[in-house]
Amino acid sequence: MSKAVVLLSGGMDSSTVLALALSQGFRCFALGLDYGQRHRSELTAARKVSAILGAEEYRVMKIPIGTLGGSALTDEGIKLPRQGEKGIPVTYVPARNTVFLALSLAWAEILRADTIFIGVNAVDYSGYPDCRPEFVDAFQALARLATKEAVEGRPVRIEAPLVRMTKAEIIQAGLALGVDYGLTVSCYQADELGRACGYCDACGLRRAGFIAAGVDDPTRYQST
Amino acid sequence: MSKAVVLLSGGMDSSTVLALALSQGFRCFALGLDYGQRHRSELTAARKVSAILGAEEYRVMKIPIGTLGGSALTDEGIKLPRQGEKGIPVTYVPARNTVFLALSLAWAEILRADTIFIGVNAVDYSGYPDCRPEFVDAFQALARLATKEAVEGRPVRIEAPLVRMTKAEIIQAGLALGVDYGLTVSCYQADELGRACGYCDACGLRRAGFIAAGVDDPTRYQST
Repeated sequence: MSKAVVLLSGGMDSSTVLALALSQGFRCFALGLDYGQRHRSELTAARKVSAILGAEEYRVMKIPIGTLGGSALTDEGIKLPRQGEKGIPVTYVPARNTVFLALSLAWAEILRADTIFIGVNAVDYSGYPDCRPEFVDAFQALARLATKEAVEGRPVRIEAPLVRMTKAEIIQAGLALGVDYGLTVSCYQADELGRACGYCDACGLRRAGFIAAGVDDPTRYQST
Repeated sequence: MSKAVVLLSGGMDSSTVLALALSQGFRCFALGLDYGQRHRSELTAARKVSAILGAEEYRVMKIPIGTLGGSALTDEGIKLPRQGEKGIPVTYVPARNTVFLALSLAWAEILRADTIFIGVNAVDYSGYPDCRPEFVDAFQALARLATKEAVEGRPVRIEAPLVRMTKAEIIQAGLALGVDYGLTVSCYQADELGRACGYCDACGLRRAGFIAAGVDDPTRYQST
């Protein structure tokens, strides 16, 4: 069985990706990143999702990009946007997916994993530059040159299976694979119990996804 | 004045790069990476070099790639190679320069720095895949897509000024800019005072460089 590193934030998208990778027969090593994000309950959610779906390991790496500032996700002094604001939002974290993929690449090489899965999504995404297919392709090109494994003829494959799916399609795919979205946390300011605020960007996209998919929304909200 | 992030390990190459960047008029922000390397005195060396040459800031980021294992530089259980062994050496650290550049990219975006300097070298290098010009070019292509700054028309430039220079040429360039190589640490197992072992790969390349450059070797060795 092939091994895969799966970037797992504990949200809907990455949880669906983990289920997809497992359904394809990969032995999955889930990687959570603690970068000082305010919604730290996503790390707890990721641990649960990873155990329930059957990842072989869940590892959290602590990285210092949060201390650099520059994002509403890591700096309590920057207000979170409400739904529907235009442009690249203040929740953008500088070079986040580049850093995440770089660390995945290191771990994949050590594990001799042949695939890295990342749950980026360019359809319902929030305008983040590092969620686009061309970004994933550029990282794939880099990965073909960057490692000893690649030089020796075993470059890692970067898989972004959700990149062109809508939120509704993602939810339907995940439900078919048995993902319990009630365990996942998308909200940028979820409380310690993983309950969502209901009005941030991430909550808006998530709620719209359940409506479009025509299924019940299992999200636990702070106000209910 | 433009800002630059300069990856600074405290060795000869990155110290020379810092001097070059300063001589080109950049305000330099030096980045040291604590990844659990055995030769931790290089971090102390980097701090000194950075202050003496005149960087505006020296920051150390702690990153967890050392805990993954897989390299003689971070795992005391893997023996360091002696000089002249063939192939990619056991001192290769999985995806190290990809991770370093990714973190530089994040910091550069927050600082609004327009350039990242990295001291990779493909001539006298030790067979590391992530020291080649094509690796640097691939990261440059990625950086053009990865960040908000890039999307808004201000992509960062990746400069690797030493990539095609010999060790002797690097030393001559650095001496012309006033670099004190006695402060720099290249040895993979330097002691706490920064004194070199004299027989590891890195010591061999360094010593040969001074001989080829025809200048005195200011390196402090443990045995002298």
